[in-house]
Amino acid sequence: MKLLIIGSVAAGTSVGAKARRNSEDLQITIYDRDQDISYSGCGIPYFVGGEIADIDELTPRDAAFFKKRYNIDIHTRHEVESIDHATKTATIVNLATGDRLTDTYDTLVLATGASSIVPPLQGVDHDNVFTVRNVRNADAIRSYIDAHNPKTATIVGGGFIGLEMAEQLSYRGIQVTLVERLPQVMPPLDRDMAERVADHLRDKGVSLLLGESVTALNGTERVTDIALESGKSIATELVILSVGVKPNTELAKQIGVGLGQTGAIAVNRKMQTNVADIYAVGDVAESFSVITGEAIYRPLGSTANKMGRIAGMVITGEEAEHRGILGTGIFKAFDLTVAQTGLTEKEAREAGYDIEVLHNIKPDRPEYMGGKEMTIKAIADRATGRVLGAQIVGPQGVDKRIDVLATAITFKAKAEDLFHLDLAYAPPFATTKDPVLYTGMALDNAIKKTARLMTPNELIEQVAGGKSFQIIDTRSKAQFEKNHVDGAIHIPLGELRTRAKELDPTLPTIVYCNKGVTGNAAQNVLKNLGFTDVCNLSGGNKNYQHCKKCLTE
Amino acid sequence: MKLLIIGSVAAGTSVGAKARRNSEDLQITIYDRDQDISYSGCGIPYFVGGEIADIDELTPRDAAFFKKRYNIDIHTRHEVESIDHATKTATIVNLATGDRLTDTYDTLVLATGASSIVPPLQGVDHDNVFTVRNVRNADAIRSYIDAHNPKTATIVGGGFIGLEMAEQLSYRGIQVTLVERLPQVMPPLDRDMAERVADHLRDKGVSLLLGESVTALNGTERVTDIALESGKSIATELVILSVGVKPNTELAKQIGVGLGQTGAIAVNRKMQTNVADIYAVGDVAESFSVITGEAIYRPLGSTANKMGRIAGMVITGEEAEHRGILGTGIFKAFDLTVAQTGLTEKEAREAGYDIEVLHNIKPDRPEYMGGKEMTIKAIADRATGRVLGAQIVGPQGVDKRIDVLATAITFKAKAEDLFHLDLAYAPPFATTKDPVLYTGMALDNAIKKTARLMTPNELIEQVAGGKSFQIIDTRSKAQFEKNHVDGAIHIPLGELRTRAKELDPTLPTIVYCNKGVTGNAAQNVLKNLGFTDVCNLSGGNKNYQHCKKCLTE
Repeated sequence: MKLLIIGSVAAGTSVGAKARRNSEDLQITIYDRDQDISYSGCGIPYFVGGEIADIDELTPRDAAFFKKRYNIDIHTRHEVESIDHATKTATIVNLATGDRLTDTYDTLVLATGASSIVPPLQGVDHDNVFTVRNVRNADAIRSYIDAHNPKTATIVGGGFIGLEMAEQLSYRGIQVTLVERLPQVMPPLDRDMAERVADHLRDKGVSLLLGESVTALNGTERVTDIALESGKSIATELVILSVGVKPNTELAKQIGVGLGQTGAIAVNRKMQTNVADIYAVGDVAESFSVITGEAIYRPLGSTANKMGRIAGMVITGEEAEHRGILGTGIFKAFDLTVAQTGLTEKEAREAGYDIEVLHNIKPDRPEYMGGKEMTIKAIADRATGRVLGAQIVGPQGVDKRIDVLATAITFKAKAEDLFHLDLAYAPPFATTKDPVLYTGMALDNAIKKTARLMTPNELIEQVAGGKSFQIIDTRSKAQFEKNHVDGAIHIPLGELRTRAKELDPTLPTIVYCNKGVTGNAAQNVLKNLGFTDVCNLSGGNKNYQHCKKCLTE
Repeated sequence: MKLLIIGSVAAGTSVGAKARRNSEDLQITIYDRDQDISYSGCGIPYFVGGEIADIDELTPRDAAFFKKRYNIDIHTRHEVESIDHATKTATIVNLATGDRLTDTYDTLVLATGASSIVPPLQGVDHDNVFTVRNVRNADAIRSYIDAHNPKTATIVGGGFIGLEMAEQLSYRGIQVTLVERLPQVMPPLDRDMAERVADHLRDKGVSLLLGESVTALNGTERVTDIALESGKSIATELVILSVGVKPNTELAKQIGVGLGQTGAIAVNRKMQTNVADIYAVGDVAESFSVITGEAIYRPLGSTANKMGRIAGMVITGEEAEHRGILGTGIFKAFDLTVAQTGLTEKEAREAGYDIEVLHNIKPDRPEYMGGKEMTIKAIADRATGRVLGAQIVGPQGVDKRIDVLATAITFKAKAEDLFHLDLAYAPPFATTKDPVLYTGMALDNAIKKTARLMTPNELIEQVAGGKSFQIIDTRSKAQFEKNHVDGAIHIPLGELRTRAKELDPTLPTIVYCNKGVTGNAAQNVLKNLGFTDVCNLSGGNKNYQHCKKCLTE
């Protein structure tokens, strides 16, 4: 039996390796039009920035490795030009010589990956304009910087590759401007969380132009300035295009392999396409949400590896099914880690869930051990209590909490389940109650209406809509005087029990403190004194001031 | 209704705070014989070492805080001397004045904690002998070091407090000797994993005396040398006793509150004792295993907080049940993090499980991003595939993986489930396939017999028992010549397909490489060529050499 795989980065090589582990009877051949195989595309920004010294570190494995270990024949710089699935024959061009050859197969795997989207703009072919996708791009960008020592760079597109590049170019001493068409960086995040990232980027000297589109890249040999839709112009010596990727589906379309609603190849859980004996894996294939079951397209190396392994198992007769993804993502932007899993608030509302939203601001470990605050925004379904998603922004310990939450969500955890987790506690690693436990406690209290939450955005919206609230600031006088929620009166928690009689227990009441904990204590005091409608402001004044700023910007 | 709580550290204050959050109608009083409340006992080693500058950081809250925020009356230096539960009356001694007072209650909570075990040895009352339990101990140790500048210290007991103290005293320039009665440090770990910790301690200059018992602490005013059962004697200027703790059950016994098989107070899932209206929480109370349901005693701040909150909920009529613990633990010893959750190999075998054991050696992130190897030992039940426990030792990223595994185990994850987790991947944080995913893959393959494992200990034992194996080292010639498994022959993986005919496919066969991955590839080659009984050596030669050393020591 002949297995032919097109594409040799993460997914394609995973298919081959797993198939070989299961069977010595298979003849396995991989063609790739690129020269590099099995490389780490996600490492590129760090190579450009110099954290990775040598480009070979991005390509630890070559064709000889796969031959020796797995008896797989990998032909690089060989582009599969066409396929005749009726005769199971592929026509391949050797890009080095121009020669054409044919090969046959019993089973075909499309692991053709994705390509950077290059917007159809004047000037995109200039030699100081780069995309960030493969090893050649990485080498080209770093070589260009080494040779020309640019002082300024413009990054078009504020997704995570754009932000990682912003960090790494800044570390090289380059003044970075980032242009993003949407009004926020990191479109997969809710806007309130994305603004925390944006603030940090600005603090680190990155100039952000949000809600701006590039209309032209101007310059003769090289781009020297970028024209924006607003009429502005930015002088620049280097341009990075990171506006997204599109799956390489040309071959698939040629042979009748169907695409899904996301534009990537539609596959079932066995990674099979609509055409018998043709599989698709990796960045060319569609995935689906563990939570909603809906098709999603989130090309990522970790998912590509999973898909490849599953296809390799299925092809060799082993039982396996892809279980979908949460769309978990993480990146580092200077001193901040930004991570996300499951549904955002926006996605959950669009999917029709009635949700509870919490902003939980907590240190990753005791402050006496160097703990620093992270903000966890968590979303749960009111009907079932199920945690639907989380976004976390903070300087440290974020990767751990997102992985714990991703694990819990995978197992359909309810908010109440999080409190019971027996996570590892010692002062160098966590607080006695881990931020994940607090998240579960507060979300569960909100769902069960024992401690209802209102987000700053909801409050601002409802006030704008004419609803009136009795708003109580429970912090110190100095804190209140520095800034407070519009319309709030000041009663510190210590006086609340005695001064509650100044308030009307029948009015809709909002209490808050700095971050949420004292607000919750105040909420309980009022509730227990007979107040009928009391919400704690999610994330307290700190989150309110942040959200208010976002809305006015 | 009057709620009386005895003990004001983690559990007692949690009961009070949660009860108050739920009700303003309750009168809440706490008595504690100590002067400090709500302190972080786990922070003590770091205060002694100086990482925590100020002792106030260990005691962030005082009685005034609890009065103001929760309207709870905390009386410190007040010892509850006796209780008459028939009349629901407590007799209390004011330790400052010697005065006696009485108080009544409707509901009583025993949060009396645990005390350091002080072995009945001559010299334990000398002024350079300390236990490590409360804020006074912390202050006393640091003051003694500041005043007397000892050059040497002896720690008696190699559990995690002992090891944390070994680290922190070393950081202060003190030459540390650690004496442990058992033949290994960290009794909660399997011995092969404990030996990795021991090696690291020795590398860092800690002198380990394992399998040794102290018979006397000699000296006139101060201990100057320690006599050991073996006849050895150690000169020392400072002695730290960390041989464990015992629950403070005196009051419980006085009033007929029953103890469990661990010696701590037996409670149901609502934290209720056998006596109506008496609860027990924290280090004085017994917990139970999430996995086996059996009673266990693992006094820890994180568990104490959980128990306290649950009792506070139950007392005020809210639905809540303790769900048990995994016994998750973590500590830092110099450059190593050591963590554990669920059952060890030893515990799992004792509990009657037929288990699969994996040693998985993997970097926490790509080596080009500074990744460093950790060793994950994971245990799964062959019958159900359920992951039963994990132990991890490594320099970084250990806390994340143990928490992910603890979360997965809580939700009854099978080994096969781990591979499907959508964990956060980016080069600064993880490898494309996270170590947790690899753990799941290898364990699942072992359970399903597609890639059986044998641990070095099993191999050594079976060889000692007379069984013969065909053992194949698949590494390079240089590696083989440096050291190899006893009796192994050398066939590098690249030659295995052609040289397999030199072997007998019907013999029990062991293959191995350095850490396990190439061994697995070799195993698959042989299996697919018709070898009927092939095991991969768990953790490869690296793990074998380590285990062999342990057994001969």
